[in-house]
Amino acid sequence: MSDLGEFALIARYFERSQHPLPTQVVLGIGDDCALLQPTPGMQWAISSDMLVSGRHFFADVNPRTLGHKALAVNLSDLAACGARPVGFTLALSLPDADPAWLQGFSQGLFALADAHHCPLVGGDTTRGPLNICITVFGETPPGQALLRSGARAGDDIWVSGTLGDAALALHCLWGRDQLPAEALALARQRLEQPTPRVALGQALRGIATAAADVSDGLLGDLGHILERSRVGAELEALDAINLLAARAHITGASGTFDPHSQADSTALRYVLSGGDDYELVFTAALESRLQVESAATGCGTRVTRIGRIVRDPGVTVKAPDGSALHGPWASFDHFAT
Amino acid sequence: MSDLGEFALIARYFERSQHPLPTQVVLGIGDDCALLQPTPGMQWAISSDMLVSGRHFFADVNPRTLGHKALAVNLSDLAACGARPVGFTLALSLPDADPAWLQGFSQGLFALADAHHCPLVGGDTTRGPLNICITVFGETPPGQALLRSGARAGDDIWVSGTLGDAALALHCLWGRDQLPAEALALARQRLEQPTPRVALGQALRGIATAAADVSDGLLGDLGHILERSRVGAELEALDAINLLAARAHITGASGTFDPHSQADSTALRYVLSGGDDYELVFTAALESRLQVESAATGCGTRVTRIGRIVRDPGVTVKAPDGSALHGPWASFDHFAT
Repeated sequence: MSDLGEFALIARYFERSQHPLPTQVVLGIGDDCALLQPTPGMQWAISSDMLVSGRHFFADVNPRTLGHKALAVNLSDLAACGARPVGFTLALSLPDADPAWLQGFSQGLFALADAHHCPLVGGDTTRGPLNICITVFGETPPGQALLRSGARAGDDIWVSGTLGDAALALHCLWGRDQLPAEALALARQRLEQPTPRVALGQALRGIATAAADVSDGLLGDLGHILERSRVGAELEALDAINLLAARAHITGASGTFDPHSQADSTALRYVLSGGDDYELVFTAALESRLQVESAATGCGTRVTRIGRIVRDPGVTVKAPDGSALHGPWASFDHFAT
Repeated sequence: MSDLGEFALIARYFERSQHPLPTQVVLGIGDDCALLQPTPGMQWAISSDMLVSGRHFFADVNPRTLGHKALAVNLSDLAACGARPVGFTLALSLPDADPAWLQGFSQGLFALADAHHCPLVGGDTTRGPLNICITVFGETPPGQALLRSGARAGDDIWVSGTLGDAALALHCLWGRDQLPAEALALARQRLEQPTPRVALGQALRGIATAAADVSDGLLGDLGHILERSRVGAELEALDAINLLAARAHITGASGTFDPHSQADSTALRYVLSGGDDYELVFTAALESRLQVESAATGCGTRVTRIGRIVRDPGVTVKAPDGSALHGPWASFDHFAT
């Protein structure tokens, strides 16, 4: 870790001398390394995500929501493993040291970090194109981490929260779709301030057979589970489309699902391929349904069954009449494409 | 961690399915998180460094040496704490997926990783301006990590290897200084392929009272030790100047140190303020001299005493006649300025 002459300013916003560190953090910011004391017997879960201006966020995004999102996408990876957050490092490349930007960014970052008792323990700052790289550490009991590889034919497929609103907001901001102002504000909050399902991930240990977080779109991330578990999936279009919170605001949307409706087709694409949701997609045995619902209720998080795991590889999206739908899901563009 | 459509190419260069992972790595690349099993009782040392094109390296640098350096600067932080490397994550932003570049970069990266038994366990790839962020994890026995805060008045100040040649090479590449071709090649190797002193750092546990790695220049990094330990330092110019391996090639350099010689003054500035050396500066009690030398010999690494810790804050650089030298050390520019 290096200090950078004029960038000493930055330290002001990230070193919080008044803020007590948890006992697990033996040494935080200020030495060559941070020192952490792992809880005896626990395994460590580690994930690293890099956010680049213009690709993962608009350059003029509110820095407070950016600070939130930069940590949220990493905590979401811990959630997908069922790990309890322990701490994170932040490496930041900035074109200049703008106090207003730094204050907003650090406030958003620390508000989420504090909510999850996940302290900043170290990092690096440098001058360069805006780039945020966070590496997060968490703990799980050995053998209890949720992996992508455990889904079995017959398992239910579940999704937490809502899906597709982030992508819908992005398309509205791009001018490619539209929503009433109030609905757009809600959808935009999903895009800019996703909620990592950290408590749900931990509550699903021993219940879910496989899990992943939805960052690149449901079909893509469920696809990782299917690939690793060597199984396939059937999804119910009607259950899926209702995951879009803003659905009622899409012109022409009906109460059910009409495969011939342009509005329903668009809504389904947002849900299946939109991305940037940071919800959990997970699988669990049929006999675990009550346990799943109880775990979700305990976390105050909605969960929805949207299909089932099948033996044969591939994904079938089924209309209410049981017929298979064919849509250009994969081609739906979002930030990560 | 996310896959990126066309960037699947990148995975080819970083997933090494034929390469066995150490038992400590329960799960490597391919899930939402990597899973590691800490050694019972050990503390974890963590450091993160971000390298930006044009700031930390030339955009057209040999990708193999860049891969080496990106990991080396992180391993150097572990060395400064006396930690044993366990693994690292790599987040990479690339303007495009150039197979030749990726092959070179990954070869340089893995050659150093393998030499230190430090596997790549996870990461992220995205499209954007070239940016490399590595986070490295290591282990130390509790209470034995080398910190910046333990230096005491009377301690010797030691430096590993050589200092200043990286900065000299950089100035030659910028056209601001010159060296004979063969000497430049050696100095350039110090700039582009620094040697993290991982074995020495571990060997100094229980011997050194404080340590830091020299990334921003000796005075800057020794300054961190002085600040944290609330002490000062006296450095011997003659001992320091001989740390510059290329010194004999600087026009007009003498066998001793002449404070009025332009060549000696320049050489001393490279040593004191050059940066990018990735050597260790550390302190140890006088009665530990034999232990320090024995530890260094055991690692095949040269160590040199260049001064002592004093009670009063600040740094005095002393000429051979005992007088204090005053130089524009801090203003010497290098990549990190």
